[in-house]
Amino acid sequence: MEIPPAVIDIIHRALEEDTGPGDITSTLLIPEQNKSKAIFIAKGDFVVAGIPFAKKVFTILDSSIVFKPLFNEGAKIKKGDIIAEVSGKTLAILAGERLSLNILQRLSGIADLTRKYVGKVAGTKAKIVDTRKTTPCLRFMEKYAVRIGGGGNHRFGLFDGILIKDNHIKAVGSIKKAVERAKTGHHLLKIEVEVENRQGLMEAIDAGADIVMLDNMSIDEMEGAIKISQGKVILEASGGITLENVREIAETGIDLISVGAITHSFKAADISLKIIT
Amino acid sequence: MEIPPAVIDIIHRALEEDTGPGDITSTLLIPEQNKSKAIFIAKGDFVVAGIPFAKKVFTILDSSIVFKPLFNEGAKIKKGDIIAEVSGKTLAILAGERLSLNILQRLSGIADLTRKYVGKVAGTKAKIVDTRKTTPCLRFMEKYAVRIGGGGNHRFGLFDGILIKDNHIKAVGSIKKAVERAKTGHHLLKIEVEVENRQGLMEAIDAGADIVMLDNMSIDEMEGAIKISQGKVILEASGGITLENVREIAETGIDLISVGAITHSFKAADISLKIIT
Amino acid sequence: MEIPPAVIDIIHRALEEDTGPGDITSTLLIPEQNKSKAIFIAKGDFVVAGIPFAKKVFTILDSSIVFKPLFNEGAKIKKGDIIAEVSGKTLAILAGERLSLNILQRLSGIADLTRKYVGKVAGTKAKIVDTRKTTPCLRFMEKYAVRIGGGGNHRFGLFDGILIKDNHIKAVGSIKKAVERAKTGHHLLKIEVEVENRQGLMEAIDAGADIVMLDNMSIDEMEGAIKISQGKVILEASGGITLENVREIAETGIDLISVGAITHSFKAADISLKIIT
Amino acid sequence: MEIPPAVIDIIHRALEEDTGPGDITSTLLIPEQNKSKAIFIAKGDFVVAGIPFAKKVFTILDSSIVFKPLFNEGAKIKKGDIIAEVSGKTLAILAGERLSLNILQRLSGIADLTRKYVGKVAGTKAKIVDTRKTTPCLRFMEKYAVRIGGGGNHRFGLFDGILIKDNHIKAVGSIKKAVERAKTGHHLLKIEVEVENRQGLMEAIDAGADIVMLDNMSIDEMEGAIKISQGKVILEASGGITLENVREIAETGIDLISVGAITHSFKAADISLKIIT
Amino acid sequence: MEIPPAVIDIIHRALEEDTGPGDITSTLLIPEQNKSKAIFIAKGDFVVAGIPFAKKVFTILDSSIVFKPLFNEGAKIKKGDIIAEVSGKTLAILAGERLSLNILQRLSGIADLTRKYVGKVAGTKAKIVDTRKTTPCLRFMEKYAVRIGGGGNHRFGLFDGILIKDNHIKAVGSIKKAVERAKTGHHLLKIEVEVENRQGLMEAIDAGADIVMLDNMSIDEMEGAIKISQGKVILEASGGITLENVREIAETGIDLISVGAITHSFKAADISLKIIT
Amino acid sequence: MEIPPAVIDIIHRALEEDTGPGDITSTLLIPEQNKSKAIFIAKGDFVVAGIPFAKKVFTILDSSIVFKPLFNEGAKIKKGDIIAEVSGKTLAILAGERLSLNILQRLSGIADLTRKYVGKVAGTKAKIVDTRKTTPCLRFMEKYAVRIGGGGNHRFGLFDGILIKDNHIKAVGSIKKAVERAKTGHHLLKIEVEVENRQGLMEAIDAGADIVMLDNMSIDEMEGAIKISQGKVILEASGGITLENVREIAETGIDLISVGAITHSFKAADISLKIIT
Repeated sequence: MEIPPAVIDIIHRALEEDTGPGDITSTLLIPEQNKSKAIFIAKGDFVVAGIPFAKKVFTILDSSIVFKPLFNEGAKIKKGDIIAEVSGKTLAILAGERLSLNILQRLSGIADLTRKYVGKVAGTKAKIVDTRKTTPCLRFMEKYAVRIGGGGNHRFGLFDGILIKDNHIKAVGSIKKAVERAKTGHHLLKIEVEVENRQGLMEAIDAGADIVMLDNMSIDEMEGAIKISQGKVILEASGGITLENVREIAETGIDLISVGAITHSFKAADISLKIIT
Repeated sequence: MEIPPAVIDIIHRALEEDTGPGDITSTLLIPEQNKSKAIFIAKGDFVVAGIPFAKKVFTILDSSIVFKPLFNEGAKIKKGDIIAEVSGKTLAILAGERLSLNILQRLSGIADLTRKYVGKVAGTKAKIVDTRKTTPCLRFMEKYAVRIGGGGNHRFGLFDGILIKDNHIKAVGSIKKAVERAKTGHHLLKIEVEVENRQGLMEAIDAGADIVMLDNMSIDEMEGAIKISQGKVILEASGGITLENVREIAETGIDLISVGAITHSFKAADISLKIIT
Repeated sequence: MEIPPAVIDIIHRALEEDTGPGDITSTLLIPEQNKSKAIFIAKGDFVVAGIPFAKKVFTILDSSIVFKPLFNEGAKIKKGDIIAEVSGKTLAILAGERLSLNILQRLSGIADLTRKYVGKVAGTKAKIVDTRKTTPCLRFMEKYAVRIGGGGNHRFGLFDGILIKDNHIKAVGSIKKAVERAKTGHHLLKIEVEVENRQGLMEAIDAGADIVMLDNMSIDEMEGAIKISQGKVILEASGGITLENVREIAETGIDLISVGAITHSFKAADISLKIIT
Repeated sequence: MEIPPAVIDIIHRALEEDTGPGDITSTLLIPEQNKSKAIFIAKGDFVVAGIPFAKKVFTILDSSIVFKPLFNEGAKIKKGDIIAEVSGKTLAILAGERLSLNILQRLSGIADLTRKYVGKVAGTKAKIVDTRKTTPCLRFMEKYAVRIGGGGNHRFGLFDGILIKDNHIKAVGSIKKAVERAKTGHHLLKIEVEVENRQGLMEAIDAGADIVMLDNMSIDEMEGAIKISQGKVILEASGGITLENVREIAETGIDLISVGAITHSFKAADISLKIIT
Repeated sequence: MEIPPAVIDIIHRALEEDTGPGDITSTLLIPEQNKSKAIFIAKGDFVVAGIPFAKKVFTILDSSIVFKPLFNEGAKIKKGDIIAEVSGKTLAILAGERLSLNILQRLSGIADLTRKYVGKVAGTKAKIVDTRKTTPCLRFMEKYAVRIGGGGNHRFGLFDGILIKDNHIKAVGSIKKAVERAKTGHHLLKIEVEVENRQGLMEAIDAGADIVMLDNMSIDEMEGAIKISQGKVILEASGGITLENVREIAETGIDLISVGAITHSFKAADISLKIIT
Repeated sequence: MEIPPAVIDIIHRALEEDTGPGDITSTLLIPEQNKSKAIFIAKGDFVVAGIPFAKKVFTILDSSIVFKPLFNEGAKIKKGDIIAEVSGKTLAILAGERLSLNILQRLSGIADLTRKYVGKVAGTKAKIVDTRKTTPCLRFMEKYAVRIGGGGNHRFGLFDGILIKDNHIKAVGSIKKAVERAKTGHHLLKIEVEVENRQGLMEAIDAGADIVMLDNMSIDEMEGAIKISQGKVILEASGGITLENVREIAETGIDLISVGAITHSFKAADISLKIIT
């Protein structure tokens, strides 16, 4: 993965947010030339994600800092593990401490929760995917963490996939008309339609949708949908997915299960940074 | 609250993230002049927060959009409640839908969880406060949501409070030396010192700290700390706070309890936007 | 069309480029309160495109300016036609003159040339589409102009479509392996493969590509490709397309013809702005 | 030439435009550590321009990339020539491919067309210069390409030269009054006046203009103008200049011939990038 | 004067600098809906400048604020005069208070000092002009204030005038060679050469300079220079100019006197903002 | 001191301001490969400040430039001293010359004037501190220069200290109410109240202020205030402080003396850059 320019800009913004006109404590306490070595220690068990972004935080602050990861992205970390080492000017290490931790903790939390969902559906054909319910400005990082956790991505934004939702259908008048207009879009984009019932599904298939999102359907309804579809479209389950019900949903034979919770209601991993020398 | 210029810039960035080169689905489906009215509906019970930012999303997109909140910030929302109405160009409403929801859902999640912590400590003198463990780029909004939930704020960043942590003490050599240097900072900032044990507390008090953060101490240790302090310093409990143990901690007589979880491990509120006409 | 935030930012940048520290001539000559009315006059015949962006230039400079288009986007303009009127502060009109013209002239040039290509293939099933050979920073506007001219868009950037090109195949080793890996991408994106000969086409079809781009093939080769494909994939002709050969190519029965020239080698339309009162 | 900060910023913006949330194809297909060597090959004959900007694209993406030009700016390239080599991480090369090509192709197109105009007027005293009819955001690069092609620059923007045009004269009332006011500008700027006839020319000379732009005059009118001027002012021919008529215009003895077409209606050079190892 | 986009951006930046994550005092103390009226009062006598920028500060913060100037730019203000009134939301007035004052105080200080210099040379042909010794990021505003004070501007930056200084001559080898190369620049720019003695002046005149800057010359040397020049070039006195010696210099008959002090060593005017209702 | 990201951004902006579309003189005169060595020479005596920012200007322009300071920040420079050397590409040195000088001259001017104030109060307990009357966009640098000059900082902006001023009291109704509300702010911020007389002081002390700013009080009033306070609050003298009266004020026993003049009415130090080889 190359970090795209827009994401580097977000990291800059986040550094400005935290450092503002400077780290007053560290500036008062620590001479500019001081050097230190610090470690990132796990305070719990989790799947780690976000190391390349944590590293970027420090290299933006000071290109001479050395950041050495001790685990690969996606590794299962145990409490007490040292995830990475960082060496260089103490002031730069302290300036990057909180942001690098905030990123690592969140992305690891996402990867860890994703891994749990993925584990639940093991052996079925269902793929766990994310949604656009990501944190404003952090979508690239969060969708990356989903992949590290073994999940797949749904479209990134409003521009890389055609997804006709209830509000569109309401505004246009019918699924048929909506799909028709959508087909005038560019040829590399498939068309997905969100439906709420069997009737909607049949209309979407007839209209030529490539994927149909089954919104908040019961297990029975989903099974019915799969029978109707007969593989003509990709089917995505969406809405109300939990760790408790995801297996049952996967076993219906559905293709995709999109889970908002993996990016909006995860538990951050517990990690801290300690200066050791 | 006035939204500061830096936060408006973050909202712009977040809109760019989601819309990129345009909402391809809506552009294909809906004529530019179309107008709609839509509502924000609660899909669960929660304390609402973030309405001013949700409104800003739409006014940035189209200054002629009318956004009408139906509840005050901090109101207890019930499933099915209509939180706000938005009217104007359909394309603008759809372009702002996801971002406004992502903000409302997160900030309401934070306010709701904060309210729970605050409720737990009701009747004690303890004040629930946040930390810098916020989402990169969203700190202003998240700390605002903590206030809406009834909590207080800790310092905003590295620049509006002197907080001497373990890494500083390690680098400087002693609490005494660290506090001494910190006193050369500007006169409007108090000095807080993080300590891990009774020894540290006594050193911090002797050195002239204004606040002492008790890091990961047991209830017994905290009670001991309060006896030692005798009101000479403000005492803050930090580390490992949960909804389960927060009451017991508050009952020690501690002044502040800082809870990272309210901004890093909350559950987003469930809200959706429906076009109604 | 809603102008996305990133495009508004580009217009700001372009205004800074032209005005720098101010329009020295106009500032010296014209009192701040002066008001004028000006017209955009066509100095040739062309398909017009870009009016919404030209308008935006002026409203960014001065929100009280009135910009009144007299033609719809895509209209066939004749020499002497008045395309739009703009009224307000003279200094603001002059500050926006060159940028609004530069945009209108380029986008009209693109729409006009696209219309010519589209006209050439009338009656065939071939659709004229653009490429990523657009002007740096102007891609959104230029791809919009292609649509105004009756063409279609190819993917916008590196992110909204999977296009496996010669360099990818070279790096990966084989078309088969490349398509396989591409299939792990998100489900809303189709996969297109660029091939140089019949062998490549067959491999791409076997590997499960959705679209195949025939790079610089002769008419004979294209006809062969269409026979091989039998409708299993969408076929795109690319490379060396001119107004002279586009008809013959379209008559092979190809689906898409991508033309770089419509965005990189068009002739700008001739338009000027005259103050009339 | 040093690339000014504002131009580096434009290159960043253009990279964001093309890469958005990442090059999905390459990320799926190619491992991060892969390295390649690629060449820029000419697919036609042209004067090359833009190499320093193409290089900058890659060094912004990855400071460890090695970019080695094999020709000097302004060299006459033949079909099949290798213009430059680039070596480094494959993902970075592919991320910069399109933007570097888009820049090189455009700037070479401009340099090539400029060279043609300059060739036409060889032996006369006339100098071919550009206009402000450049692509929004690319003016610095395009005016640089004009110089590489042997042309000269007119003023860069509204701020580095006083040019009194028809709209100014209309607003002020007379050439005399306009020039008078213009003389209060700073002492390093000369004053140019656009006139449409002999009467205007005489007024401009009387008013003390340094340069007079003859707008859309016939050969006869220009010859008349040169007689009237008798070297008192620099004379610039402007409007309707083509490769067909430029020689005849130059032979009138005019000083400057400004040509909008060299920056708004050129044909992009044909160049491609091939990975070779 | 239209405020150019780049200057509006600077005002945004300056607001971010002062407000950071919000005006904590005012937010704690004053309800959001509160409205006030405030006045700008002079605490001394001075020439006022900067009102349009002070106004812009408030309209950026809140477009509904009413800002009403009671004096024209350049007016002589007496202690106790009310310069302007501002009415609207109290929080917005307080958020803009310091920045609007910082701008008004500085620009008035510059205009006032410039007026003093201009007064000293009254009746001579000498014009007082500024230099590039302005405050980083504030050049546009500061050069505007110089004009309000009755002075003239020198070039704005490195791009709108050719000024060959000692370091250039050192690098090129001779004045002659330097001027020769400078003549290949665009035709709207005059060429100025900085010289240190009579020899330099003669070389510069011979080489065809338009303006010669006499660097740190004595009155005698300047008089000598004027004799040598005989009006062939514009002469500018520069270096070591003070209110004490400027009259004597002006009386030599010099054309321009550039004074760095008016933008780098002025005394800010004393102004304060008082809420009256 | 680490230069925070926001300050680096300001330096970029300032470079754009000065270089715009390029240094036309140097580009015309000096070949790109030319290298030079230049020195910063003092043209007067002063305390030097700003070297790290001057260095940053050059490293932003060209990372290969070598900048070698010959004095420490805060050193007393004598006329003729060489402050620093800079070696590298001539074009980069010339592009950074003016901005680096403008910064060094201003910051040295501030440090020098601060040193004078600090010297005046030597032996008293009074500390000289700055205000928010700094130059828009340069606050970080200017407050740094105050520290180099031996002064202390007041709060940086509206966000890192609670300062209740006359306008707040006017809006809230009473000092008591204002301080009460302020106490709901975060626990690391002290509360300062501006008062105009003895009555205000007593109210502020009663309300629990930490610091009281005595606005424009006479020596007698200040002495009275110190008696009233009896060390219960920190006292700050503010308003109308000059080099003439500062000693007398300090001798009252006041704690802090804030001086706007050190950042708004200093005299820039005289420094120039000379190319020597």
